[in-house]
Order: sequence, then C-alpha cells, then structure tokens
Amino acid sequence: MRSSTSPPTVRDVAARAGVSPGTVSKALNGTGQLSEATRSRVTAAAEELGFRPNHLAKSLLAGRTYTVGILTTDSFGRFTTPVMVGIEDALGAGRMSTLLCDGRGDPLRERHYVQELLNRRVDGLVVTGRRPDPRPSLGPLPIPVVYVLVQSDDPADLSITYDDVQGARLGAQHLLAGGRKRFAYVSGPPRHWSTQRRGEGLRQELASAGLDLHPDLVLLGQWSEAWGRTAADQLLRRHERVDAVVCGSDQVARGVVDGLREGGATVPDQVAVVGFDNWDVMVEAARPRLTTVDPNLTTLGRVAASRLMSAIDGAELGHGVLLQPCDLVLRQSSFR
Amino acid sequence: MRSSTSPPTVRDVAARAGVSPGTVSKALNGTGQLSEATRSRVTAAAEELGFRPNHLAKSLLAGRTYTVGILTTDSFGRFTTPVMVGIEDALGAGRMSTLLCDGRGDPLRERHYVQELLNRRVDGLVVTGRRPDPRPSLGPLPIPVVYVLVQSDDPADLSITYDDVQGARLGAQHLLAGGRKRFAYVSGPPRHWSTQRRGEGLRQELASAGLDLHPDLVLLGQWSEAWGRTAADQLLRRHERVDAVVCGSDQVARGVVDGLREGGATVPDQVAVVGFDNWDVMVEAARPRLTTVDPNLTTLGRVAASRLMSAIDGAELGHGVLLQPCDLVLRQSSFR
Repeated sequence: MRSSTSPPTVRDVAARAGVSPGTVSKALNGTGQLSEATRSRVTAAAEELGFRPNHLAKSLLAGRTYTVGILTTDSFGRFTTPVMVGIEDALGAGRMSTLLCDGRGDPLRERHYVQELLNRRVDGLVVTGRRPDPRPSLGPLPIPVVYVLVQSDDPADLSITYDDVQGARLGAQHLLAGGRKRFAYVSGPPRHWSTQRRGEGLRQELASAGLDLHPDLVLLGQWSEAWGRTAADQLLRRHERVDAVVCGSDQVARGVVDGLREGGATVPDQVAVVGFDNWDVMVEAARPRLTTVDPNLTTLGRVAASRLMSAIDGAELGHGVLLQPCDLVLRQSSFR
Repeated sequence: MRSSTSPPTVRDVAARAGVSPGTVSKALNGTGQLSEATRSRVTAAAEELGFRPNHLAKSLLAGRTYTVGILTTDSFGRFTTPVMVGIEDALGAGRMSTLLCDGRGDPLRERHYVQELLNRRVDGLVVTGRRPDPRPSLGPLPIPVVYVLVQSDDPADLSITYDDVQGARLGAQHLLAGGRKRFAYVSGPPRHWSTQRRGEGLRQELASAGLDLHPDLVLLGQWSEAWGRTAADQLLRRHERVDAVVCGSDQVARGVVDGLREGGATVPDQVAVVGFDNWDVMVEAARPRLTTVDPNLTTLGRVAASRLMSAIDGAELGHGVLLQPCDLVLRQSSFR
C-alpha cells in the first residue's frame, strides 16, 4: 500500500509494475503492441494503487471526450424516459457518458445548448422529444447527430422512430381475426402525426379485408380519458352499434372502456377495444385490462445510440427516417 | 468576416479586439481587473468570429469541469422527472452541465458510476431516486454530494426531501375545516416510508382536533387504483360510514373515488377524498377531480442544486435531512 496521501500517478504505477510510464499508458489505453502478461501486470498495479487516469488530459490527447449529448425538446416524460433507458443501455455502463440538456421546446434555449455541447466537445448528439411529428433540423453540425422518437424535417439527417402505421395495422388485424366488422377510430387532435398515421394504418388494414372506415366513426379530440368517455357516449347513441374501437392512445382507450361499460355495453363481448402505447398505469388499471400496441421505445433508444456510436467510430451515419416495428400486447379488452 | 476555414483562436480574438491574448482570457473567463469597455469589446470580437473556447483545456487549468453528476437509484420516472427539471433550472442554462447515470437500484452498477463520475472530475454529485425511504450512503467522497428526494442513512450527509407529515396534516386540516369527523386512511405497503409518515401526519392532525384514527379504518395495501377500489368496497360494507378518506397517493385516491361512486356513495357530498402527489394524469381524470397534496418536487431539485453549487463555490454543505414543505391543491373531491 502507498503511504503518501497524494493521488498515485502514472510514474507510481510504472514503478510498481516495473515498466516505463509509456508502457503504462499503452496498457491502460489499450493501444500499442504489448504482451498480455505486461498488460495485466500494469492493470493489477494500477488497481492496487487506486490509480485514476486523468480523464480530461486523456480526452485532450485522444481528441475524444467519450461523452454524448442528449438534447430533448421537452421535459423528460413518459415517452422520453424509456428512450433514455435504451440509450443508456447501448452506450454501455460507463464507457460513454451522457450530457443531458432539456430544451423545453424553446428554439433559443435549444440553440444555446447545442453550442454548449459543442464547447464541451461531445463526440455525438442524440435529439429526442415527446412527439414523433417532424421537427426543424438542427442543421449540419461537426459531429454525428441522431434524432430518435422525434424526426428531423431534413431528409439529410438520420431519424429513428417507430412505425405508427404498422402498429395500428397490428391492432386492426387482431380485431379482424376475432371476427369484428364494424370499426370506429377514437384518437387525439387531427393535426397530430400520431392521430393521422395510426388512422392511416387502421384504414389500410380494413381495406385489405374489404372494409372501410366510415367518416362518422372517426372521432378525433384530445389525448385524454375524458375525451375517450365522451367518444364512447357518442358511439353508444348511434343506431348501429360498432363492435370494435381502435384508439390512438391508452388514455383514450381507457376512457372508451369506462364510457362503454358505464353506458351498458360489455367489453370485450359487445365491443372490443385496442389502445396504443402500452403505458402500464393505464393498461393495468382499465377494466378490463387493455390490449395495446407497444412502440418499443427502449429499443428505439438502443438502436439510435448504437448507430451514433458506430458513426463516432467512423462508420457512415446514414440518413432518412428509419422506422422500427411495434408489437401487439394482448390483454382482456379485445377478445373473448 | 474571417476567410480562413480553421476555427478562430484566442490570438484571432485578441487581434480583432486590439488587446493581448491574456486580456481575452480574462475577459471571457470573467477574471482579473478589466474595464467594462474592454470586456465588451473582447466579447463582441469573440462573437463576431464565432470563437469557441476550448472547454477541456479551460477545465484543466481551472481545476473545475463545470459538470455535475446525477446518480439516480431508479429509472427516470414520474417522481425523478420533476426533480431533474428543478436541478436543471438551478444549474442554469449551460453554466453547469449534468452527467447522468442510472444506477437502476443495483449497488454494483451504482459504485461503478460513482467511480466513472470521479474519473470525469465532476465538481459535485446529486443522488436521487424514486422513493424517499432512507438509502445506504455512498460514504465520504472528495466532492460535495447532495441526496434529494431520497435520503441517505448517514446523518453526516445532506439530504433534501419533502415533509410527508406536514403534507398529510394539510389534507386532514382541510377536511376537518369542512366539518368531517369520521376518517379513514387508505395507503400503500405498510413498510414504506411514505405510508408510515403520511399516516403519522393524519394521526397528529386528528389528535390536535381531539379525534383519533381507528385501527380498523387504516387500510394498507398497494400503490394502485385496484387497491383503492378494493379498500372503498371494504369501507362501504362497514356499519358506520366514514365521511373522509385521506389517501397515500393519487392512484389510490382515484381508485377510492371510483369504488365509492360505483358503490353508490357520492363524493364529496357523503365522503370527501384527498390524494397525495398532484399527478396530473390521475387528478384530472378522476371523477370528481382530486384535491391532493403537492410535494413540490421541482422545488426540491432546485433547492438541492443550489446547495450543491454553493458548496462547489466553497460554502459549507451542511448535513442532516432538510424537509421542504408540501402544498395543498384544492379540487372537487373534498368539499361541497
């Protein structure tokens, strides 16, 4: 054990391992030609002494900081959280660290943060946010940038998000397989990307079964339970009853299920309901529990971070919008 | 405008501003004695040239990285998210950056991250997580550490969290002021800190009004809506009806409100209900909307980050558990 109280240096490690300081540097950085025996002798000596390489000095020399910036356009929330977990997974415990910036949807704040991240010499940047609607590109930057969950409006950028159309088709397919024929679509604001694309998926799947979606049975409103309940009331007041409701979110689906049940329609016997998001808080508390589409947000984060790391290591980043598939999670709201 | 394509240097800025490179450094770092005119001439020159100081080199010289580590013991979720927003607020847009590590409740992973953050020479560390129950201390570290939302089990550490007892007292006080007399407490698992402390607050407030909480009317189970509904059923089957229910969370409160309504009891006329958390998704979707206790998590984050920054600047960090007050948010579930 060392008796001095000052932190151990490369020289201390070299002396203990019986090698030159240059060899210590090669062994700890994994560079140069060294025998496995020498490398492990140095590693052991460094561990025994509690040697901590000066990360900043190392970064200056390597021209890399082993740090990735994450810029979110919105507070960390329900959708960005699983994406972040996936990013962390892929960056690996400690190999790369993440510098986090919350732009809160304010372009000025965002520009400031990008500047700050560049000042800090991050090796790459992930841009994320709450909604998949196309957003303004940050423009060309001197480091690789991947948009995830959100998508850039510039096709020269690489965006990775989930496939809303395919997800909604999965839900509709399952309901069709259960013999349902009279469909309604209850979803959020008409201008939202998710509302439009999920509706498009439902239409495509119905068309492939020779059915169509009547405009009167497309009820667009808010992303809330209250709107789901209101829409269910409207559906129950119609002369001809629907037997399947595809919803744009789990919150809406939960409201629909509550509204149908309280209006006297049984779910799933009379009406089958499918949600979107696989948000535990909603799907587990609904009665019955919700069948839903899982957009696999953690996988999105993992894919985005892997692509970014490859690009940092010199691979081609690629460009365009890369759509990842959704899964269907079966619970009690959709089949007998 | 510069015509060269290589990035501008301190010398370029100095030449443009007509000062020495040393003066540029003083002006941009806010150090030394300079006239306001000189300082703004240098700043203007730096901006015009798009000069970006080499952050790494600057950090090495200053012995500071202007980076704070955030270690969470759990995935970023509903409770940690507002805390993080508060931390970001206090650290200031870009003045300090945050390096984020998700220990996921695994002590090994956590130890690894602490080591990594120390290697990266962070100026300070914030430890947070999902639950306020005391957690193992990270032990003495060479940088200031603040625990927020979670609390360290070592009184030598500084922990900042909200006052569960005071929060529950606020809710009970409001119900007593409305003339309620027969109270029940419906909450989560008995071993949880929040369950115990919020129950203690209710008991204290009732005692100050000369009432007590009958053990049969303390229903402890899960942090779920389903448990709230079950508990409401149990309350409705009792001979003597309660007229007030204090709940340990908004999820539980929403279940209680649903269970009471579906069991034929009107809320708030026959029974008043108060939740805890002020979680928008629950309080807004409940019928009626929930009166609840707001633990002010964003304020917690702000207070913690301010204390940390002062300590980094040399102030005494302090120690012990600092409790921040909760607020009561009135909605329709609690009064006529």
